[in-house]
Amino acid sequence: MKFEIMRHRLLEGLNDVMKAVSSKTTTPILTGIKLEVTEDGLRLTGSDSDITIQTFIKSEENGDQMIRVIEEGSIVVQARMFNEIIRKLPTSDVEIEVKENYHTHIHSGKSEFHIIGLEPSEYPLLPEIQDDRQFIMPADLLKSIVRETVFAVSPSESRPVLTGVHWQVKNGELVCVATDSHRLARRKVILVQLPEGEYSVVIPGKSLNELSKIIGDSSEPVYIAMTSQQVLFKTGNVLLYSRLLEGNYPDTSRLIPTEYKTTVSMNGKVLFQAIDRASLMAREERNNIVRLSSIEGNIVEISSSSPEIGEVEEEIQTTSIEGEEIKISFSAKYMMDALRALDGHDVIVQFTGAMRPFILNSVHDEGVLQLIVPVRTY
Amino acid sequence: MKFEIMRHRLLEGLNDVMKAVSSKTTTPILTGIKLEVTEDGLRLTGSDSDITIQTFIKSEENGDQMIRVIEEGSIVVQARMFNEIIRKLPTSDVEIEVKENYHTHIHSGKSEFHIIGLEPSEYPLLPEIQDDRQFIMPADLLKSIVRETVFAVSPSESRPVLTGVHWQVKNGELVCVATDSHRLARRKVILVQLPEGEYSVVIPGKSLNELSKIIGDSSEPVYIAMTSQQVLFKTGNVLLYSRLLEGNYPDTSRLIPTEYKTTVSMNGKVLFQAIDRASLMAREERNNIVRLSSIEGNIVEISSSSPEIGEVEEEIQTTSIEGEEIKISFSAKYMMDALRALDGHDVIVQFTGAMRPFILNSVHDEGVLQLIVPVRTY
Repeated sequence: MKFEIMRHRLLEGLNDVMKAVSSKTTTPILTGIKLEVTEDGLRLTGSDSDITIQTFIKSEENGDQMIRVIEEGSIVVQARMFNEIIRKLPTSDVEIEVKENYHTHIHSGKSEFHIIGLEPSEYPLLPEIQDDRQFIMPADLLKSIVRETVFAVSPSESRPVLTGVHWQVKNGELVCVATDSHRLARRKVILVQLPEGEYSVVIPGKSLNELSKIIGDSSEPVYIAMTSQQVLFKTGNVLLYSRLLEGNYPDTSRLIPTEYKTTVSMNGKVLFQAIDRASLMAREERNNIVRLSSIEGNIVEISSSSPEIGEVEEEIQTTSIEGEEIKISFSAKYMMDALRALDGHDVIVQFTGAMRPFILNSVHDEGVLQLIVPVRTY
Repeated sequence: MKFEIMRHRLLEGLNDVMKAVSSKTTTPILTGIKLEVTEDGLRLTGSDSDITIQTFIKSEENGDQMIRVIEEGSIVVQARMFNEIIRKLPTSDVEIEVKENYHTHIHSGKSEFHIIGLEPSEYPLLPEIQDDRQFIMPADLLKSIVRETVFAVSPSESRPVLTGVHWQVKNGELVCVATDSHRLARRKVILVQLPEGEYSVVIPGKSLNELSKIIGDSSEPVYIAMTSQQVLFKTGNVLLYSRLLEGNYPDTSRLIPTEYKTTVSMNGKVLFQAIDRASLMAREERNNIVRLSSIEGNIVEISSSSPEIGEVEEEIQTTSIEGEEIKISFSAKYMMDALRALDGHDVIVQFTGAMRPFILNSVHDEGVLQLIVPVRTY
């Protein structure tokens, strides 16, 4: 194997595939990145066995020569070291050559590195995913869906299925749900092009977070294909494969109240900032609990106190308060996460008494629902 | 105590004094910041008992009213919490009022915080430093001196005096030296205005690092006053007091060779980058050692190898190599620290054989000397 490549383009590719490489792997070959060179270009693969990211750099991109292939071939090189070497090389192009016994030479300007690679045939093969159950979504929409749901997955492995986001395709609609059993985030999307039949998969939160980092904010299409064990996201020249979580996702629809006793419309950003301030007093305690109380004149009061430190209260003018008076306590963190996911828009908060879960919606987008289970203090 | 203050100006002041406050203190009152309000303005003090930072915000600055004093007084408030509260308040001004039992009210817009302060008379008094042994230095020069020396102090408490920088005033010259016994950094300055008599103090590296953060890059004067136990740096409205280190600083002058056998002139930045690359192979091993060898044609080769990972070599064209051939090994980190302190200028490196310390100077400034003790590998 021998080729020359533009260093900035190789770095871009490495930047993508490095996201899948974990230093904690127990499989030595997975500390490496696989490089495969053909006349057409360079394929890079990184994996931690749960997530695999693959990117392809074409020999010629937009009329510019990126790679000059002298001899085709493949090698696995230690990922972190290879990435650091490429990053620190002195010139804008780099020559990579593999000689016998996987001895790999990296040459740039007057700088010459010799590292020992690994047998490429030992690198795990990618799962096979057929294209027949594939659907398409714009990258920016996919990114929103992830942002609005993934934060609510459970951080605890005690119920592994809750560490993922439940994606369900049913009746021409995609419904994404995440919950840690104290709060829930749900996003519904009606897609123009959905696959036939029904799907129900649970995608690890970690995979969705990595996906978010490698897709752009454009409306570029992302191809999504699923099997019973894997999901593949494909955009531009980058592919992300993720293992799916096993087990049945709980039926969350019963958690969401169908009737409400108090409805408050207000500015989400103002509410966020008041909760943020109130949580300064709350978070010293273990629970980080703030209170919300409705007052006459369409005002809500946000307050918190800590016997050791002090107390805080703040009045917020709402657009409207309809229905019964409400006094409720909840986690400041959950509330701030939910408001952040609603992106600072005007929000509608609906309560069914101090003991029942309450929900938040965006005034501008009915597709997003955030639910929070209150804490009993009153 | 009751006053109103522009929030951005209070934050600026807090930003300075917070640098002296440590969360690790064993003296509860030092987790706080002292606020003292008089007609003239607000004085803020933070301290970890080694370093004390004080700043004064005038009631009127450049014709703008910063503070409206309603009642003079003082209080100590928990530093981190107070800073966070002020940072998150909703409006551009804030009212602070202390009522009985140190109950402190912080009011901004519709937000109202109540925190419990501490007795201000319990806050330690500042050391008394007379002005008679005071000298002046421009802020940017002071910052350079710190940058060029402080990195070389010892991180180990086994010889406490080496954790500081030795400042010596003698024969109208200020000489600053830091060493961890493996390398040494020395800066000489001839100041226009030096104090009479001789000084020899050791300033903790930590204090100098904090000093660097609070002084600007301007040529604004900094007033420096010393006693046998304390040093005071005073610039604008900010004062930094630091305890001095006890004990005799070793005589380092004998460490520096007086004769050299090889002199290399070269670009410091090119050398830095080559060492940086070579250290990629070196730092996996415990020692992080790279080699430098002179070759014919005014070339030096930088190289490194690690049996497990691989090897690297790079040739650098120098301006000149005079004297004997040299092959020497040293810590990549020490070399990079020294070159960074010389600020990327052209450098002169002078060797006295592979076993003796070698020195680096800037071509542009003879006042800075960096010394490194080599490692015996040849």
